[in-house]
Parts: sequence; C-alpha cells; structure tokens
Amino acid sequence: MNIDDLRARHPDHWNKATALRVLALDAVKAANSGHSGMPMGMADVATVLFEKHLKFDASNPDWADRDRFILSAGHGSMLIYGLLHLTGYADMTMDQIRNFRQLGAKTAGHPEFGHAKGIETTTGPLGQGIANSVGFAMAEESLRARFGKKIVDHHTYVIAGDGCLMEGVSQEAIGLAGKQKLGKLIVLWDDNGITIDGKVSISDVTDQMARFEASGWSVFSCDGHDPEAIDEAIRQAKQSPLPSMIACKTHIAIGSSAQDTSKGHGALTDDQLIADTRAAYGWTHGPFDIPADIVAEWRQIGARGNIAFNEWTERLGTLSSAKQAEFQRQMSGGVPKKLSAAIKRFKKEQSEAAKKVATRKSSEMVLGVINAVLPETIGGSADLTGSNNTLTPDLGAFDADNRKGRHVSYGIREHGMAAAMNGMALHGGVLPYGGTFMVFTDYARPSMRLSALMKQRVAYVMTHDSIGLGEDGPTHQPVEHLAAMRAMPGMQVIRPADTIETAEAWELAVEADGPTMLALTRQGLPVVRSKHSTKNLTAQGAYVLAEAEGKRRAILIASGSEVSVALEAKAILEAEGIGTRVVSMPSMELFAQQDEAYRRRVLPAGPVRVAVEAGVRQGWDQWLCAERGNWKKAGFVGMDSFGASAPAEELFEHFGITAEATAQAVRDLL
Amino acid sequence: MNIDDLRARHPDHWNKATALRVLALDAVKAANSGHSGMPMGMADVATVLFEKHLKFDASNPDWADRDRFILSAGHGSMLIYGLLHLTGYADMTMDQIRNFRQLGAKTAGHPEFGHAKGIETTTGPLGQGIANSVGFAMAEESLRARFGKKIVDHHTYVIAGDGCLMEGVSQEAIGLAGKQKLGKLIVLWDDNGITIDGKVSISDVTDQMARFEASGWSVFSCDGHDPEAIDEAIRQAKQSPLPSMIACKTHIAIGSSAQDTSKGHGALTDDQLIADTRAAYGWTHGPFDIPADIVAEWRQIGARGNIAFNEWTERLGTLSSAKQAEFQRQMSGGVPKKLSAAIKRFKKEQSEAAKKVATRKSSEMVLGVINAVLPETIGGSADLTGSNNTLTPDLGAFDADNRKGRHVSYGIREHGMAAAMNGMALHGGVLPYGGTFMVFTDYARPSMRLSALMKQRVAYVMTHDSIGLGEDGPTHQPVEHLAAMRAMPGMQVIRPADTIETAEAWELAVEADGPTMLALTRQGLPVVRSKHSTKNLTAQGAYVLAEAEGKRRAILIASGSEVSVALEAKAILEAEGIGTRVVSMPSMELFAQQDEAYRRRVLPAGPVRVAVEAGVRQGWDQWLCAERGNWKKAGFVGMDSFGASAPAEELFEHFGITAEATAQAVRDLL
Repeated sequence: MNIDDLRARHPDHWNKATALRVLALDAVKAANSGHSGMPMGMADVATVLFEKHLKFDASNPDWADRDRFILSAGHGSMLIYGLLHLTGYADMTMDQIRNFRQLGAKTAGHPEFGHAKGIETTTGPLGQGIANSVGFAMAEESLRARFGKKIVDHHTYVIAGDGCLMEGVSQEAIGLAGKQKLGKLIVLWDDNGITIDGKVSISDVTDQMARFEASGWSVFSCDGHDPEAIDEAIRQAKQSPLPSMIACKTHIAIGSSAQDTSKGHGALTDDQLIADTRAAYGWTHGPFDIPADIVAEWRQIGARGNIAFNEWTERLGTLSSAKQAEFQRQMSGGVPKKLSAAIKRFKKEQSEAAKKVATRKSSEMVLGVINAVLPETIGGSADLTGSNNTLTPDLGAFDADNRKGRHVSYGIREHGMAAAMNGMALHGGVLPYGGTFMVFTDYARPSMRLSALMKQRVAYVMTHDSIGLGEDGPTHQPVEHLAAMRAMPGMQVIRPADTIETAEAWELAVEADGPTMLALTRQGLPVVRSKHSTKNLTAQGAYVLAEAEGKRRAILIASGSEVSVALEAKAILEAEGIGTRVVSMPSMELFAQQDEAYRRRVLPAGPVRVAVEAGVRQGWDQWLCAERGNWKKAGFVGMDSFGASAPAEELFEHFGITAEATAQAVRDLL
Repeated sequence: MNIDDLRARHPDHWNKATALRVLALDAVKAANSGHSGMPMGMADVATVLFEKHLKFDASNPDWADRDRFILSAGHGSMLIYGLLHLTGYADMTMDQIRNFRQLGAKTAGHPEFGHAKGIETTTGPLGQGIANSVGFAMAEESLRARFGKKIVDHHTYVIAGDGCLMEGVSQEAIGLAGKQKLGKLIVLWDDNGITIDGKVSISDVTDQMARFEASGWSVFSCDGHDPEAIDEAIRQAKQSPLPSMIACKTHIAIGSSAQDTSKGHGALTDDQLIADTRAAYGWTHGPFDIPADIVAEWRQIGARGNIAFNEWTERLGTLSSAKQAEFQRQMSGGVPKKLSAAIKRFKKEQSEAAKKVATRKSSEMVLGVINAVLPETIGGSADLTGSNNTLTPDLGAFDADNRKGRHVSYGIREHGMAAAMNGMALHGGVLPYGGTFMVFTDYARPSMRLSALMKQRVAYVMTHDSIGLGEDGPTHQPVEHLAAMRAMPGMQVIRPADTIETAEAWELAVEADGPTMLALTRQGLPVVRSKHSTKNLTAQGAYVLAEAEGKRRAILIASGSEVSVALEAKAILEAEGIGTRVVSMPSMELFAQQDEAYRRRVLPAGPVRVAVEAGVRQGWDQWLCAERGNWKKAGFVGMDSFGASAPAEELFEHFGITAEATAQAVRDLL
C-alpha cells in the first residue's frame, strides 16, 4: 500500500500513525542522532496494536494485569516515546520528547527501564527484548496458575527487527517459547529488509516464518502499513494456543527519500529530506506540533483501558484480603519476615552438623528453605539440573501442562535463560534463579549486564566455580570469571566458603534490589563457620573468620573454596610461631560498601597480606596493596593461566593453590 | 537397525565401529569420568566418514588440503581420540588413551587444539565447533579462489549434537553459512534425542531439518547406525552447492542398558553395565585391547589418503616457487618484512601530519597499509562496517559470487563472527579481523576466550570504546569491558591513544601468536606522538610520553582517549609548578611482560600516581598501588557506574573525566 492510498482509505488511522512518524523525525532532527526510519516504518503496526489490542491504561501504568509491550528493536526508541506521550503517560511530556537523547532526559537513546512508565525493559542490545519477552510470558502463565484468570490474563507483545532475529539469543528464546507453548506471546517482526550495512540479503537469507514455525510457533504475515491487515493478523495470533510471530512487511523510513535504504535506518537530519517527507505525508504542522484533535484521539486510546482497569480492581477486591496482600507482596518483590527466621534456623543446624558439602549442594539445601517460604521462586538450569542443584523436591516442572510447576528446563541456552529471567523479574510476581557452570557466564553475559543495569532481582547460580571442576578441562574451568563479573557495576558477586555462608548469600540475593551471582563449588568443602552467628556476616563482604593466636604478622584473605585452604595455611604458620589472621571475603562489592572503620578493623595496616583464590589476581590488589596495604608485603596465590584437564586435587597441586604454597608466600614476604 | 542386524549385515564395519565404542567405554571407565554414550552412538557415522569420505593422511596430519573434521560435540572427545589412535596418528598412542583426562595427557576431557594432531579446534563449550566450521569453510573458499582448485579443494565435516544446536551461536553460524552458500560444509547432527537433563523434548520441539532449510541449507537424514544409509547421505550432501546438514538418527550409548537415556550421556562406569555391553557387542577382548586385524583395517583407512597427499604435493610443486613460498607463508602465518617498513613509513607521515582522528578511523588507515601488503587478511563487521571502519577500498565483498572478496558482512552476529574468525585462523592461510562496538565483546566473549585458549591470531576491532560513544546510552557504552577483557589470560588488549599508537597496535596484532583486542574511539583524538619514533613503543605496553618539566611530583598514567586528557592535566599542573610525567599505557599485559628495570624507569617510586581511563578502576591498582606505588598517593579518574545517554562531551564532564578533575586528583594527593 503506498502512502497516498493509505491516507485516503484510512484517514483517521493515517493521522494517528503520522503523528508518531513526525515526532520521530522531529526528535531525531533535534538530537542530531538516533534512528528515524524504524518508527516511521512501524508506526502503522504500533498504532493498530495500541488502538485495537493492547490492554493498558495510561493513567494506571503499574496495573499488574496490563499487556506488556516490548520494543526489542530498541534503537527505534522514538516509537515508544511517541506512543507513551500521545497516549498520555504523565511522565512522557513533550519536553521529554524535545530533549531526546540529552543528559537527564527520560528519552534516552535506547529505552531504559526505570526512566519512564510504560518502558517494560531496557532494550538496544539486539535480541534482548524478544528474549526477555519469553520470561514475561512465562511469568504471566505462572501467576495466572497461582492467582487465577480473573486477576492475571494478559498478553506480551514484542516489536522485533532483523537484528533481533539474527542475534543467536533470539533462537534460544524462540526455541524456549515454542516448547513452552506461550500462546499469549505475540512477536511483530518489522520485516523491512534493511540493516545498517545494507539489505538484509547481504548477510542473511533466512526464511523467518519457516524458522519460527520449525520451533513450534504460529506464523502470520501482513502488509505492515495496512491497518485492516495488521488488525486481522493480530486477531488471528491471539487465537493461537502457540506463540505467534507476525511478519509485518514494512518500508523503513516510509515516505522519505531514504525509504527502503540503510540510510533510512539511521538519523534523518537533512532539512530538505524532512520537509519533503512532511509534504509527502500532507503534514502541515510544525516540529513537535501535533494538532489537538489527533492528540485527543490518541488520548482516548490511552484511556480506553480504564474501564477494564476498574473492573480488574474490583475483581481483585473480591479476593480474600490475605490473597490480595500476597498478590501485592509478590508483585512488589517483598520478602516475608519468616524467611529470615528460617534461614537463621538453617544456619544454626548446619553450624552444628558441620558436614563437608559442596556449596552447590549447600545451595540446594538453602533453596529447600527458601522455596518453601517463597511460592514466587521459579528455578531452572541450562541443562545441568543435577550439577547446578537448582531443583528442590517440591517444585515440579514448569511446563505447558503444569503452569504451577516452578522449575524450568531451559535447555542448553544460558543466554536465553538469563534473558528470560530478566523478563520474569521485570514482569513482577516471580523471583527467578537459574544455573549453569560458572564458565558459561560468558554465554549469558549480555543479559547479566542488563540485570545489573536494570537492577533486577535475578539470582545466578553459577556452579563449578574454579579448576575444582576437574577433568572437563580449561574450556569448562572459570579462571577470569570472578574478576570479569566483579568488574560489572551493580552485579553482587558472592563466593561463599561453606554451607553457612551459602545460606547468608542466598538471603542477600533474595533481599537484594539487583542481581546476584553465587559462585559455588563442585567439590566438597568443610564448614568453616562452626560457631553459629545469627548475624549475616556475609553481608559485610568480609570478616575476621579466625584471629591470629600470637602476634599478628600475617593476614590471609580468601573466598569460597580457598577459605579452608587459608585456614590450613594458618595452622602451618601458627605452628611456626607466625600469628596469622584469616579473613573470609565472600563479596568484594559488599566489603567495599562498609564504612572505613570496619574495613580497617578487618584489614589493619602492618601485617603481610596474602590472598588465596583459584582465579586471576585482577581485583585483589585493591585489598592487598591499597586499603592500608603495602605492595612489598602483598602476595597472591591463585591462577595466572587457563586451567587443565585432570582430577581436581591434582590441579590444585599443579597450579600451586595449596596451604603449603600459601604459607610459603607468607614466609617469603616476612 | 538393531545391533544384531547391524553386526550380521556389515561385519567389517561393525568391528571397526565397535573398536571406537569399546575404547570410549574403557577410557571413561579408567578415568571414572567423561562421556561414553556419544562416541558409542556416533561410532557408525564416524567410521563411515573416515573410511569412505574424509580426505586425510594420518602420517601427514598437517597436509594443507586435508578435509577438516570438527567434533563440535566436544564432550564426546573419546570418539576423536579413538579415531586418531586407530587411524595411526603418531602422537595419539594407546598410552594417551589410557590416560584419558589425566594431567599432562593429550587426551583432555574435551578436545584441545594443540594437544594432538588431528584436533582442528578446541571444542566443549557447545555450539563453538559448528560456528568455527563456518570460518574453516570460508577460509577454504578464499584460499581456493587465491591458489586454485588444484591446491585447495577440501571439505569441512562437523559432528554436532543437540546442545550445539540449542546454543544461540549455532543460529548465527547456520545463518552465515546459508547466506554464504558454503557447499563444502557438511554437518552431521547426532540426532539422539537426549540431553543431560533428559529427553530433548523437555526443552525443545524444534524441527531441526526445517530450521536449517529455512536458512538456505540442504538437508538430509539417515539411520545413523546403517553404514550404507550414512554413506549415501554423505554422498548426496557432497553434491549440494549449499551447506548440508545430515540428521543422523542415533541411539546414545547404543547396546548398553543406558541406551536412549540421559544416564547414557554421561560416564558409564558400572562394571556390570560395561560387561553386559561388551557381551551385547560380542566383543571378547579386554580393556584397551583392539585385535590386530581390526587395527590393521583402521590403519589402512589412515593411510588411504597418502596417494592423494603425494599427488597434491606434486601439484603444489608445479606452482612457481614464488607462489609455493607465498602459499606456505600464508598457511604458516608468516609476516613479510616489508610490512614493518610500510608501518614505519605510515607512522612517520602521521606523526608529521598530526591530524585529529578517531582511532577507529586511524585503524582504517592502518588497515589500508596492512591489507595492501597481506593478501590473506579477511576483514568484516557485525553490521557496523561504517562505524567500525573495517572496510578498506580494495577489499571487495566476500560472497558466493566473489570468493576473492576480503570483507565479510557478518550480519548482526558478533558471536558467530568471532567463532568464524577462530575457524579461519585455525584453518590457516587467513588472517581474520572483525569489528563491532566494544560493549558487544559481551556477546562474542565465549569465542574470544577460545581465541585466547587456542592462541589464535584473530584481531578484534572494538570501536566506540567508552562513554565517548555518546547518545546511544549505557547499553552501548562499555564501562567494565577493558577490565573484563584484560582479565582473560592470553588476550592482548591494546587501547591506542592516537593514529601512531594505532599503527603500532596493529603491527603487534599481526605479529602476535594469539588474539588481540583493539579498543578504539568513536571520537576524534589529537596526535600525542608528534615526534616520530621508528621503534614500536606500544610493544613496551607503557612508556614515558611526556616528562615532567620541573621536579617530578606526579605521574599520570592513561590509555587511549584519556592520554590527551592526561597531557592537558599535565599542562595545568606544570603551570602550577607541579612537575608531572605522563605515561601512555596502551597495554597492561605488554607492560607487565617488560623487565623490572624498564618498569621502574617508567613508574619510579615516589611521585603521586593518578590513572585516567574512561572505564572501571579494576586492574589499575596493580600500577597505582603495587609496582613501587603507595595507596595513599594513588588516585583514579574513571567510571564507577554505567554510563548515560547524552552527547559525548557532556558525558565526560558529567562523569568527571576531564583534565581539571585529573589535576584536582593530583592536588588532593600531594
């Protein structure tokens, strides 16, 4: 359909969609950067979606049962900003639109979760939105099973581009959604045939409809500029019990001289081009000037859901007050007080039992406590359930046949798992955790970064956290991964030393307002915290685990499996008359947040300091040489290369991560 | 086909394949770990491939024109070890097989490149092998175009499992191979329906044949235990002008009581099970005992290619000696001497011209020099060609219609690009480089780690290396990525300060025996090395760029775009009488490798030290507080959070990465 036909045949639609188009043109022009063509091309689809299908109420943007709209093709951010502004979201003012991409504006270059209501997730890194959406849809299914269809019954809509579909994570998402039969997930593919470098065909020949269909999706297609065709396709998709993909054939930068070109993908800032495009649209209004009648029509769309919202509120009111409170608690991420008591009880039992356990197994034991208290946890593993110990007995499998199940078989899809967990956390009502081998944080890293950027409560259960993994060899042994994850702002990295610290770490993960990575061992570890403490010592990041017996001449600092190595080294050194303190440091981030007086008590000036950790040194100099330290009296026992394939005990000997090597490092520095 | 039928109908085949099966059983039993079921299940396919199709000569394993065999499902490593041993590769002795998964053995838990001949790439992290294979096949096409079919004409065969196909990177690989019409790439899918957690169907319902077909592949299927059917499928695949996928329907752990179960995926170590399986096979020989007649048949297979090898050697001999030498040089990765001279010339010109240029543009200028001297470079970008500046004018597009082209449109596939580049480097004859935004190293990280582990010469052109990226915002601004990449053993990270250092960085990348990541700016940078030096100063990792004018009271250490900030800060401080040295530190790794005397000259004890880098502090304490430093006199000007969306200059002000802030940090410490 060419634009003259479109305009003639659907004048009301045309005006609304064109308001979106010109807002994108105007904002990109003002910012002198951004992406004009995608909002121009997808304005018709978005208009039909918001006008005819999307369940939302602009004046109640936090409505728990709203449909979720995810702009996976986040570079087209002006599309969502325009939609939110025109439909009347209070915080998306025209001033924000005018300040597109400027410091402090809600209208960042890519949609940023938390900047404005209606932005359900941060997108921009391609493929993430579509992969988040699978988690949104899973959360909806889980909550519906728990609270009933009267309270939870909504769709997740996604606009995805060719870039999203080329990124590998999209395949993981498509595969997971297809298997899970997520019928309320609908992806609108902006099939414009253009990427930054040119036509899609220079890098891909994939038949996307066949690809989605191969993974268990329903597929539809439409002219992405014909409002009736778009409406009909969405209607059909809503009927399908399977996730649906609608190929919307569109023209990027429609109506401009850059239409259907890679130039049209980017920032259209040429004055003549913009003037010509406005003329082609028959749009006579000035920049950022949307006629009142068109605004009014959009506002009506924004208010359309208000009745449904009120009806929903009434239905919620028919639940028992306990059930209502529980729904609100789960949606807001509150933690019931009894969890803390349960964890204290568990810690006490375990301190007394003092059993040698791998911390991955400790984690399973703690999860038994947590999962019993928090019905909103949904665990899972990327096909290593028995190794990651994520499945506690009462969870059941989350599946199309059992939406009350709480453990997901994510398949061999670390990246898709992390992205889905972000979606669950963002949706609300679910506390997701998922496991894989720690070395495969590399596969999941782009989504883990978004957990941190969006401050989402996602728990990463990363087991086999060192050469202690053993025979699988260097491809499976993390060496640099603790450092790499600690480098990420906002990622809480905790490497507990035993079952007690693992319980404390989990308590912190559940109470956090951001993501946590738990680094857990494959190999058994003795309990180092045999004296019970009700206080969560791990929350301090580091603490004195064992004081020097004689004059304090050395401080050993260790994390995780190396804390018991440090304790052994202390025994050797004390036997030689070298007073040695052992500091357990499960979390550098948390220790850095303590006040200086506490940090000084833990790490006073003077003694030799040696850190022991089966990873690279990077990051440790902060505690060895800075923080009242002295580089001439600082040592490190750890890894400076990749690992090797052999039984774990042999590897620790081979790479010199032993009590004797630690003691020797101290002697060398005294 | 059940095993009794198979044995009865193809007794010779049966014996050979069963030798592979029992070797896997025996080695896994001896190691008490590993994966028995996959080698057992795929032994028939592998036997047919090696006996009837694979072009190789066990006595000439480095034959440049051999077919490449890639075990993407690397956990089934005993399959390739068995094949290499039985076909007579000299270094794969029975002692190695007996020492499976033991320290120092060539038979690591997963196949490790460099451990033994015939292991073409390190596999284990799932999806990597199949993604490498695309690069192998591209390298073959490129070399064939350059040296002719007489010299280069071979296939790339891959065995991939369900795990490989579920990983997102496989979709990137499949899409790229389909677009590139890599007809000599043949993937044998071990379609056994089992993963670690159970049946594939618990996590995936994908019709893999439809999926591959959707991306432009030919697809075939066969009973993976019927040697005639396997042979026929491979024959057909070889006829196709498209890449081919053969779905080989197999039984994991065939013939054992663990057949077709997830138990069969793992280590079968139960004595009774092993005895029963041997009985079912009719195998009466002891552990590690392969009868001489079966060994002899396998050795014949290993020698089968010797004639072809000799013929090929003769054909190579018919080339001019210059052409032969050039082929050998490219295959061995040698660098012609004239490159060094060309780079020195370029440096001199640029020192004199002293133009303000973004280092991503500097990189393009240097590539112009390199690409003219080295016909084996193949560049590319993950759909950011104009931003990464990877395309120099004379390269041409590598495509099915133009195999002499030297620039690849990888599409929005950072991970697939990195994996393909590993494949190209491993194949030999190609020096690959590829670009994306530096923040997307997160997407490519699993393959970048393998570049480092395998010590492959791959150059990562990572542009937009800080908040200097500007308006695209925090999702696109690297903050922790320099630290995260520096944490990786064996990854040479270089962040040049100007065009001159960029030229030096590229010289190091080309001459390296491992991967290099170049961190390059979006924004223009002044030349800081206006005085020409023929010596490659970047090779020292850090050097004194500007000496203090008065008494040296401060040392500023900076990399990349912040070197000019440090020079400005120096000017401010010197004006206040504070003598300030500026050290440019383009590469921490290279500086750490210098002898202590040099390091002491660059970073003497005494002065205040302040580092300036638009990234996180992690890693810098090594140079600030250690290395003769003093934590009380150490400061850092950089980032401690994610970035934001705004024009770049405003961001540097906002986050306090300025000359004035740097000067103030010095004043505060004096």
